Amino acid sequence: MGRIITIGREFGSGGRELGRRLADELGYAYYDSEILNEIAKETEYSKAYIEELSQGRPVPLFPIHYGSTWSPSNDPHFQNALDIFSSQKKILLELAGKSDCIIIGRCADYILEEFKPFRIFVYASIDSKLARCKERSKQGEAFNDREMVRRIQRIDKKRRQHYEFYTGRKWGAKENYDLMINTTDRDIKTLVKGILAIFR
Amino acid sequence: MGRIITIGREFGSGGRELGRRLADELGYAYYDSEILNEIAKETEYSKAYIEELSQGRPVPLFPIHYGSTWSPSNDPHFQNALDIFSSQKKILLELAGKSDCIIIGRCADYILEEFKPFRIFVYASIDSKLARCKERSKQGEAFNDREMVRRIQRIDKKRRQHYEFYTGRKWGAKENYDLMINTTDRDIKTLVKGILAIFR
Repeated sequence: MGRIITIGREFGSGGRELGRRLADELGYAYYDSEILNEIAKETEYSKAYIEELSQGRPVPLFPIHYGSTWSPSNDPHFQNALDIFSSQKKILLELAGKSDCIIIGRCADYILEEFKPFRIFVYASIDSKLARCKERSKQGEAFNDREMVRRIQRIDKKRRQHYEFYTGRKWGAKENYDLMINTTDRDIKTLVKGILAIFR
Repeated sequence: MGRIITIGREFGSGGRELGRRLADELGYAYYDSEILNEIAKETEYSKAYIEELSQGRPVPLFPIHYGSTWSPSNDPHFQNALDIFSSQKKILLELAGKSDCIIIGRCADYILEEFKPFRIFVYASIDSKLARCKERSKQGEAFNDREMVRRIQRIDKKRRQHYEFYTGRKWGAKENYDLMINTTDRDIKTLVKGILAIFR
């Protein structure tokens, strides 16, 4: 059984950079959006559609009327979201069985529980996340700070909803992780050295 | 201005051992129950009384009756608890100004905010905390597992109430810390190496 590191992360907290560097140092496989491609192959949904549905919780298109015959299971998007999660689960289990690896997001800490992964959560203050997002945004993207902050909050809200819907656990609550790292004012390279010392 | 590490910790999670080892490695001063002695000297309360009052939040002795003239400020224990917290604050600020140090508990992350301390929170699963408490308990202490679990929960509840009363912040919530470490199934010595790599 391979060794697994899972990384949950707030948007703009540097979780991906941290994961990539860890994977480089350890020589582990690194999975992030690659997983979406695999799901696309398996389910025949487009990558964009999968990306859309695998954020947030599956929301029925119409409000639920109590006593009516309508139920979420009649909603094709709701059903597809569940299909995609089920595919994702299958793929994660396959990848984890194949080699040591680092997996970003995707409820991997929960899905791969039996592999006893080392579960990291990466977070930062909103100012720090804003600064990081501005740094890496393309020049063409003309979000102002307020818009960018709203975008960060919206994405984090979706991640929380997604995680909590599928796992029944609280996203970013300490009991679900082995190590929680605040990247505010911290250099990711230095953090990686420390994580390696703890993990090895 | 000295470098400060503050350590919040759940009871039985190994936070004190971790703090001691960090202090040894770094050559920093280490403050824990020593602080109580300092406060005792300053306030002329007995150490046991201070220990009692500096856990939990200051609870009025009698229920508050709305509309009556009684208020918490008439309760000498309530007032003494506030005095002790104020003394503790003064002493922490003095100690922090004197040299690099590690401070366990005592809302130090909040009180010493202006020193920009490196704020660690140490936690563990209840099973792990139980095992650690049993290991270090004296042979004479004949708590059974259930009693010990209740004791751990009671002490953690007091710590939470104390922290939240004096700081207005949530105890153990990630935004209040730089690093949160789950010691379940982990060796404290290995964790210390990693923390040093991150902190240095």
